[in-house]
Amino acid sequence: MDFPSSLVQKAVDEIAQLPGIGRRSALRLVLHLLRQPKDFSERLSSAIATLRQQIRYCNTCHNISDADECSICANPLRNQNVLCVVEDVRDVMAIEATGQFKGRYHVLGGKIAPMEGIGPQQLTIDALVERVENEDVREIIFALGSTMEGDTTNYYIFKKLSKFPLTFSVISRGIGVGDELEYADELTLGRSISQRIPFEVSMKS
Amino acid sequence: MDFPSSLVQKAVDEIAQLPGIGRRSALRLVLHLLRQPKDFSERLSSAIATLRQQIRYCNTCHNISDADECSICANPLRNQNVLCVVEDVRDVMAIEATGQFKGRYHVLGGKIAPMEGIGPQQLTIDALVERVENEDVREIIFALGSTMEGDTTNYYIFKKLSKFPLTFSVISRGIGVGDELEYADELTLGRSISQRIPFEVSMKS
Repeated sequence: MDFPSSLVQKAVDEIAQLPGIGRRSALRLVLHLLRQPKDFSERLSSAIATLRQQIRYCNTCHNISDADECSICANPLRNQNVLCVVEDVRDVMAIEATGQFKGRYHVLGGKIAPMEGIGPQQLTIDALVERVENEDVREIIFALGSTMEGDTTNYYIFKKLSKFPLTFSVISRGIGVGDELEYADELTLGRSISQRIPFEVSMKS
Repeated sequence: MDFPSSLVQKAVDEIAQLPGIGRRSALRLVLHLLRQPKDFSERLSSAIATLRQQIRYCNTCHNISDADECSICANPLRNQNVLCVVEDVRDVMAIEATGQFKGRYHVLGGKIAPMEGIGPQQLTIDALVERVENEDVREIIFALGSTMEGDTTNYYIFKKLSKFPLTFSVISRGIGVGDELEYADELTLGRSISQRIPFEVSMKS
């Protein structure tokens, strides 16, 4: 693409580096910005700059936070004995939205993915081990995505923590609530049979 | 969505105002920015701010430009007698990429769309009339998208310019090059029959 202006070229180059946005979409966004009042671009630009400059992470669970301790870790009503291990803040938000979890979190910041150059050192696994050593943790719930990287990460952490007197669990996999069996993939359906639960338990929630 | 940080909240709010980006995608982009080095966000943020602050438009054709006159209008080799009327810079870029047009452009900045509050006054139609009065224009090519708004705009401009000794033409509509007839919609196929061209003409390009 030959741009008639170096400013447009530069903006498209930067925006097109974002995941899921190609050069065509980037140009569409640039033209949209040019049609909006000046302060729209200013607010957008400053929100992006401030975000990266001033972002903070909870010292305990490593979730994104406005303070040194996030509102969940700071809440004395949350169960201190259960830690739910998740990949990032989106998972915390998703689980919080269910209202089903009253424990605390540990945010890894990713999954072990050697192909992408992400090893255990890039994640907050050492900090998790420290928490188990210093806090009164009794159960670890693994709530990573159901992928090979997720399973690998679960197993790595399990090995690291196996010397502690902990209960380990994984969020259940299976047919989604409201889903028809015929649309489920074979692996999911297979798991939902092999890992079936007692009928009385299923009636509870 | 309940965000754990007001910075994230603010960035998501701003990014989600862009067309085609929902709150979920905005959060995905925010998390991506947080994983990148600081200078990535800085470059993105400054490109957006500079774009809107310093953007300039060609005084003649109203295309986006780095100077008071764009490179096309400044080029003495471009035919001064033919003006191609387009909606925005994307259309200029698309037509330039074909290498088939050696005239000059007039960028309207949109189409007449009363439903979206865009009337002739928001577009550069008066400037187009002035150009026809002052320059040696002999042909106007309408190259707007083939929609009701496009046709309305063409007709409005045609009426405004009908007192001048001009030839008017519209880019041809029809089956795309390389397309099968069975996949074309009825309107397009109908037009390509009613507006058929002499066989010898079709052999030229």
